[in-house]
Amino acid sequence: MSYPEKFEGIAVLDHKDWKHPKKVQFEPKTFYDNDIDIKIEACGVCGSDVHMASGNWGDVKKPLVVGHEIVGTVVKVGSKCTSGMKVGDRVGVGAQVHSCLTCDRCNNDNEQYCPNVVFTYGFDYPDGYNGKGGYANYIRVHEHFAVPIPENIPTHLAAPLLCGGITVYSPLLRNGCGPGKKVGILGIGGIGHMGIIFAKSMGAEVYAISRSDAKKEDAFKLGADHFIATKDEPDWGKKYFDTLDLIVICAGSLKDVDFDNLPKAMTVGGKVVSISIPEASEKLEFSAFGLAGISIGNSSLGSMVELKQLLKLVSEQDLRVWVETVPISEDGVRQVFERMEKGDVRYRFALTDFDREFTN
Amino acid sequence: MSYPEKFEGIAVLDHKDWKHPKKVQFEPKTFYDNDIDIKIEACGVCGSDVHMASGNWGDVKKPLVVGHEIVGTVVKVGSKCTSGMKVGDRVGVGAQVHSCLTCDRCNNDNEQYCPNVVFTYGFDYPDGYNGKGGYANYIRVHEHFAVPIPENIPTHLAAPLLCGGITVYSPLLRNGCGPGKKVGILGIGGIGHMGIIFAKSMGAEVYAISRSDAKKEDAFKLGADHFIATKDEPDWGKKYFDTLDLIVICAGSLKDVDFDNLPKAMTVGGKVVSISIPEASEKLEFSAFGLAGISIGNSSLGSMVELKQLLKLVSEQDLRVWVETVPISEDGVRQVFERMEKGDVRYRFALTDFDREFTN
Repeated sequence: MSYPEKFEGIAVLDHKDWKHPKKVQFEPKTFYDNDIDIKIEACGVCGSDVHMASGNWGDVKKPLVVGHEIVGTVVKVGSKCTSGMKVGDRVGVGAQVHSCLTCDRCNNDNEQYCPNVVFTYGFDYPDGYNGKGGYANYIRVHEHFAVPIPENIPTHLAAPLLCGGITVYSPLLRNGCGPGKKVGILGIGGIGHMGIIFAKSMGAEVYAISRSDAKKEDAFKLGADHFIATKDEPDWGKKYFDTLDLIVICAGSLKDVDFDNLPKAMTVGGKVVSISIPEASEKLEFSAFGLAGISIGNSSLGSMVELKQLLKLVSEQDLRVWVETVPISEDGVRQVFERMEKGDVRYRFALTDFDREFTN
Repeated sequence: MSYPEKFEGIAVLDHKDWKHPKKVQFEPKTFYDNDIDIKIEACGVCGSDVHMASGNWGDVKKPLVVGHEIVGTVVKVGSKCTSGMKVGDRVGVGAQVHSCLTCDRCNNDNEQYCPNVVFTYGFDYPDGYNGKGGYANYIRVHEHFAVPIPENIPTHLAAPLLCGGITVYSPLLRNGCGPGKKVGILGIGGIGHMGIIFAKSMGAEVYAISRSDAKKEDAFKLGADHFIATKDEPDWGKKYFDTLDLIVICAGSLKDVDFDNLPKAMTVGGKVVSISIPEASEKLEFSAFGLAGISIGNSSLGSMVELKQLLKLVSEQDLRVWVETVPISEDGVRQVFERMEKGDVRYRFALTDFDREFTN
């Protein structure tokens, strides 16, 4: 059978045993006229995958197939599709697979903030289907949430752009990152390392901000102009007083962010934007005095228009994010989960070799 | 003696007995060449006065003469003054009396965020003098921190503009309040009532947001287009989903602000700006998820350029803030302190009749 009735994925069956995912078959969602089917070739590994698989963000329906940095080839196109994507095209799918597409937010390139958003896996569609992600052989998705991948971006380097990349690019774009601006990227991990690359490519003077100087050399290679090791410079807010126009917080948790110094380093009108989604119970807490003249906000994903802009930027400037590939399998997923938990990746994993693991 | 060596004021001598202020004489600060002396005619009563007098914000040097919404007549001009203000001019002084006037912030109309800011009373100047405020017969101040009062603004109505007024006007101005924008004023007190008046006069559609509907009628008289009583509409965030471009929080404390609903009522990119200075120990606390797509910040006072803009707006549109006058005296100050503590004022006090209390 060249085209399966059921899809296959590497799934978490029990949060308690999340580091031993199993290969399972699952029913795909109903195929609607605006849907496309994609045969998956690579899938990036996002911190969210670990939060969801482990149950950090609460109990999720099983089987849970995570993964939302998906690149593959279109194998089927619904009869009412209008995007122009056709069988054989290489496309990507990120962390969102549904919104109402009719509200003001959807009509103004803010579908990621639509109240009817459905994220790619572990959330229910309006018809009750619980979405399955990209650690699988296929994904079925509304064409609106798929984007063509420019030819010169290798598949494994395209994958991390689809969630991590767009998540840091959107707040850079919306908050004026560009020539003449001093932009801090706080937290140099999977998303932060892309933040340095993009901010630099957008023309800003880039400050990489990390706790220690362990990633200093990498930060400069990625394009940073300055490096601040906050633990080594306890008075960094004073040293860099009135310097930064924008900081994007890419740290996985806000607990360790130095909110005493950070506001001091900001210019008046400066913006601090967090893209972290910490454990549900974690609270931001600071003195109102600390925010004098600046603002802090939270950004979620990016719009599909912004994702297309990002892919264009990466293609035109031939930007290369740093990716370690791991062949997908039960054991491969176990390995990346274990290493993600330890922060042992520089700087993003992509699962590959889907055609070896899945026969269909 | 027509011009005194010593000034006189109604002072707090002990935080524990702050509601029994006493009339005292005090040494003015050294007269520098850029200073002017102002004979005071009226002084507004700000929430800060109560916080400082009572010791809520910590122990302050005594005698403590509060008051930073000061209007009076210039009686002396330093030899190096260049602003053009002359003896006989009616001028105002707000909550700031010093900054370095040389740093980037001072040079870019952000002197209120200069690291060397000195607030009007209870803070030390670089020469060690501890500033005294406007519950007094005179104030001596650098000319940069005095502004001419347009002729058609009555003295007692000008006073509240100098701290409370500019404090709500600056964040309105800096965050795009104007035609086509939906702007919320949360907390309808001394500052909030001016916020409604100014936001309306700037062309925005104004939402007054209060806990109960006790001030509903007033809010509409002040110019509000809509009124939200948050305690009566527990789901107001849902009802007003995606509505407000800007909310300025004018509540005296952030403890009672409904941070569960508030973000829901904001548009994507919407800004929440607090001008509250709560008790020092009070912390802002919320889930990072709650700020998705919006930002929150804190604004402090306004620049002198913005203050001049505000006075021009009030003069040209003949705006009238709501002021209750009380003749200054030990007993008058006691009365306003007691009523301020109970929130028993609609909506701002101005102390007047200085020439009856002070013989000089």
